[in-house]
Amino acid sequence: MDIFEKRRSIRKYTDQPVTDEILHQLIEAARTAPSGHHTQPWRFIAVRSEEMKKRIVQADHNQEWMMSAPLFLVCVADGYVRLKDETIELNEETPYKEQKLVIRDTAVAIEHIVLKAAELGLGTCWTGYFTQKEMKEILEIPKDKHVVAVLTVGYPAEEPKPKERKAIEEILMYERWGK
Amino acid sequence: MDIFEKRRSIRKYTDQPVTDEILHQLIEAARTAPSGHHTQPWRFIAVRSEEMKKRIVQADHNQEWMMSAPLFLVCVADGYVRLKDETIELNEETPYKEQKLVIRDTAVAIEHIVLKAAELGLGTCWTGYFTQKEMKEILEIPKDKHVVAVLTVGYPAEEPKPKERKAIEEILMYERWGK
Repeated sequence: MDIFEKRRSIRKYTDQPVTDEILHQLIEAARTAPSGHHTQPWRFIAVRSEEMKKRIVQADHNQEWMMSAPLFLVCVADGYVRLKDETIELNEETPYKEQKLVIRDTAVAIEHIVLKAAELGLGTCWTGYFTQKEMKEILEIPKDKHVVAVLTVGYPAEEPKPKERKAIEEILMYERWGK
Repeated sequence: MDIFEKRRSIRKYTDQPVTDEILHQLIEAARTAPSGHHTQPWRFIAVRSEEMKKRIVQADHNQEWMMSAPLFLVCVADGYVRLKDETIELNEETPYKEQKLVIRDTAVAIEHIVLKAAELGLGTCWTGYFTQKEMKEILEIPKDKHVVAVLTVGYPAEEPKPKERKAIEEILMYERWGK
């Protein structure tokens, strides 16, 4: 089984903490990600304190299961090289092209972490059921950034079955759309 | 060396074609990607004909090096479950929240392909120097989709050195932004 098949979204974790050594291995995997013009817009805030975790969970649609994860990684897109106006506030409905590009690049780096975690025997889950405004307030993130996800990280205490997925014929076409 | 370190953006390829068997292995890796509400918004158009490749390259900022790749994967975000109005046209500057979410999810699936390709000894390169309008016209893609990338795929004919990257201290914080 390769790491792509091994990866599952894990929503129940053991008490085992995620050490700084493991955390660094995860961030190293993120560092190797490709990005447009090599801007590397990804930033990560490692959160372990119960107090901060509670506030984040409350803002993230009260997903109580998240509390069992010993580590949260708040994943933020920065580096708006062509958007140098700090008075700009980014949110879910802002129209900037640059915002879409750094969301793309940061998502790629986050998935490097997710797959590296699977390789190391850890579990993760992407979450994103929050507003930009509220999550930025809690983490004191400047308003011109975009919070792409809160990733839960820990050692799995469950083994979820593989989900049903779209057949290859539904997602692969040849030469043109619909063919 | 793990697949994260092994991955490089490759811009020069050998003549060796990418078989359908390999293509299917790449798409299988994409299929396993996580997505919000399990929407699986990713779609891929495999392009091998010289005529279509030429038109795509012209629209993609005339990056001539792309022509050496035997396979292009045009990677498209679909599945706007909460945007059911087919009259909507998505482009670089549209403001929809849903568009940002499927760009995120499709980027994740694309990177599964990129990393799987590295595992199999293939090279890839993300490209995105095109307009939505022009790329959709060439591929006959409906206007309510979003083209996230054109990925070049083939066997490497170069071994680029690792790029300099931001230090871990520049991208990792603790508990709050800036700490």
